[in-house]
This record gives sequence, structure tokens and C-alpha cells, in this order.
Amino acid sequence: MKTLKELQERIQISFKQEALLEQAFTHASYVNENRSKGSKHYERLEFLGDAVLELTVSDYLFNRFPERPEGQLTKLRAACVCEGALVVYAKELNLSDYFRIGRGEENAGGRTRDALVADIFEAFIGAMYLSEGIDCVRSFLGKVIFPKIDDGTFEANNDYKTLLQEWLQKDGDISISYEILSENGPAHDKAFQVRLVVNGEPQSIGEGRTKKTAEQSAAQAALASYQSQEKNS
Amino acid sequence: MKTLKELQERIQISFKQEALLEQAFTHASYVNENRSKGSKHYERLEFLGDAVLELTVSDYLFNRFPERPEGQLTKLRAACVCEGALVVYAKELNLSDYFRIGRGEENAGGRTRDALVADIFEAFIGAMYLSEGIDCVRSFLGKVIFPKIDDGTFEANNDYKTLLQEWLQKDGDISISYEILSENGPAHDKAFQVRLVVNGEPQSIGEGRTKKTAEQSAAQAALASYQSQEKNS
Repeated sequence: MKTLKELQERIQISFKQEALLEQAFTHASYVNENRSKGSKHYERLEFLGDAVLELTVSDYLFNRFPERPEGQLTKLRAACVCEGALVVYAKELNLSDYFRIGRGEENAGGRTRDALVADIFEAFIGAMYLSEGIDCVRSFLGKVIFPKIDDGTFEANNDYKTLLQEWLQKDGDISISYEILSENGPAHDKAFQVRLVVNGEPQSIGEGRTKKTAEQSAAQAALASYQSQEKNS
Repeated sequence: MKTLKELQERIQISFKQEALLEQAFTHASYVNENRSKGSKHYERLEFLGDAVLELTVSDYLFNRFPERPEGQLTKLRAACVCEGALVVYAKELNLSDYFRIGRGEENAGGRTRDALVADIFEAFIGAMYLSEGIDCVRSFLGKVIFPKIDDGTFEANNDYKTLLQEWLQKDGDISISYEILSENGPAHDKAFQVRLVVNGEPQSIGEGRTKKTAEQSAAQAALASYQSQEKNS
């Protein structure tokens, strides 16, 4: 098992309150098996870390996407802090290597169980917030989460066809259809071209190697165009 | 309708970015009916305010109740930021008086609809956070929410009998019963005394004007005693 000193050096943050860092990496099963040590487990830090993540991510999304409506921001935030995403962050940081768990939990594979790994990430953020403050958390997430937001990692969860439909239906029912304009090339290297038609009017054209990606591309282009029109109106 | 100047004087906070305050009190229906004004509606601020409330309340609970386990804190936080609670805060501050909504929404009673009133409170907090910073929000909530937490307003949602049961069952199954020791007085002024018995051992005594409040009181006393034992062990 690696030491928390090594972790702090690696992430270049030296915790003023190292006991909190230790607590963030201690599971209740370890506390129960080592009562004489009087350790604390991470659960209360996880409670706090959850809210710290919620705010720092919300704040980033709010400023990063000044034109996106609340519904899209809410979906994107959910994708950034869902268990699956937390597991990815925790694994990239190898947080499991520092986790103190009881023997029973260890034998049951607890160290790598998704729900626990996600918990450690939240507890770790909670400890960082208490020991170093929210600006330190923000700058840390600027390495761990925000670049993924910029790269569109979480947009895959956004479906432009659905987003477009939501956008257009704000003002009531509307008819949306996609027409295939062309389909070329051999089976392993197809190229599709589709046209988006809204209430009978052609709106945009999308291209892609499958019908689906071509439709998504047409929807994304139309959405961007509507949003920029609203912005400038 | 009252002016936002009046609101700022009353709460003794002068917004550096008054446009944000205005946005927090503007409904989408108003924006739609007054397109030429180019106003923005509150929804994005509500997205942000929701997360600001979550963190400031979590932080307060974390420090205020250093001995409470995560599960209890999570329940208490949910009670503090649920729609019903937000409506109470908003009404105490008369926030509806400042709300700009469209005519249709006004005629439909939107100004006093709970979901909208709760939204305004969150948007108002979002605007305060952006304009004045998190410390200002914290100090504002120190007048609006935190005293209610201290007064036990949200504890009514906590049921000590259930909390005690959860606490005791951490270490496996256990038998819990309440025995009536005495029942005195006339029908309109009863006094009950009950004894809590855990695994056959008497633990605590509670008194109350109904059997239920006497049981809650016994459970609360036992819970406090167990928690302080754990703290000192």
C-alpha cells in the first residue's frame, strides 16, 4: 500500500490537516477491526464532498456555457458527478491504493467496488475542502474534471436529436424529420448525407459514416444555429 | 409591486450586480411577453443557487453536528432544502412581491404557486452568490435558515424511534420495546411515563402527554447517551 505522503507529492497539494486526508481513505470496516486505533471513517466527509463537487462543477458549467438553458446544464452536471464518472476520476488518481479497509471487506473485493471507489473520491474532495479551501478544490478539479468537460467527454450523454426536439418544442408542437439525401461508398466505408426538415422547411445538412451520426450532426448544426439566433435577437 | 431597492435595504445587502438580482426575479413568461426589453429569466440562476444552498447547508450541518452520522445529516439536509422548506424561507422574505411574471401566468396564480416560489428562492441565492460571494450567502442564511436548524425545526422530520433503531441495528438485529410505566391525569391532561428496553435491558425513561411523545422522548435520551458513549470510547 502506498503512503498518503506519496499521494500529496503526486497531486502537489500538501494537506494542512493530514488527519482529514487519512479519514477520507478509511472505511468503516477498518475502524471496526481496529477499534484501539480510534480512527474515523470517511462517511461524513463523503456527505460534505458530495455538496462541494456539486457546487464547483455547477459553477464551472454555468460560466463555461453561458448560453445553455438550465435543463441542459442539469443533465451535464448529473453526468459529471454520477457514480460512473466519479469512479473514472478515482481510478485515474489510483485512489484505491491508499484505501484502508477491513479484512472482510478486502476479501470481498471492496477495494475495487465501484460504489466504494466513488465514495472515496467524494470523501477526498470533502477533506481537501476542509483542509485547503474551495479554491484549492477548484484548481484541483481544473486538472481532473474540467478538461473532460471541455473535451466533450460528457456530451456523449447528450443526444443532439433529443436536445433539438426539446429546444423546438419549447414553443409548442412541431414536426421534425430527417431525410437521406445520399448514401455512398462500400459497406465498410459508407458516407451518409441527411437533411433535417422542421415543419416542412429544410434546416440543415449532416454527414456521417452511419445514418445515425449524420442525423446527429444535422441536429447539432441546427441547434447551434437556433441558439446563436436567440443569443443575437 | 415593491422595488428591488426596497428588498436590498430590508435584507441589508446591496447587490454590486443588480442585473443578476433582477434576473432572479424574472419568470420566462415575463420575458416572452416583453421580448423588446431583452430581459433574462431566472432558470440558470436557479441551477446555480440549488448547488450553493446544498453546500452552505451541508457545511453548516457538518460543523454543527460533529457527532451525527452521514445518514442523519443527509436526511436533515434534504429537509432543509426541500420545496416545502424553500417556500417557507421565500414567504418569510416576501419574495413573491418582487416577482415579474407574464399576464397569463399571473392570472393562473403563478405568483404564489409553491414550485415557482421555491424556484425564486434558489435563483435569489444564485444571484447573491455570483454578485456578493459565498460568504455573504452564508451570513444571509445565518439569519434565514441556520436558526431554524438550531431550533430543531427540521428535526420533526426526524423520528427518534427510527433513528435509535437504525443506530442499534448497525451491529445486527436487536430487540427494542417500550413499556408504559404509568399513565396519570384526566383525559385532557394526561401524563405518560414509558421505559425503553433493549435486548431485555432497561435503557431510558421518557415522559410526555401522549404515549407516542413519551416513547420519542425515551428514544431520544437513549440515542444521545449511546452517541456520547461512542464519542468518548
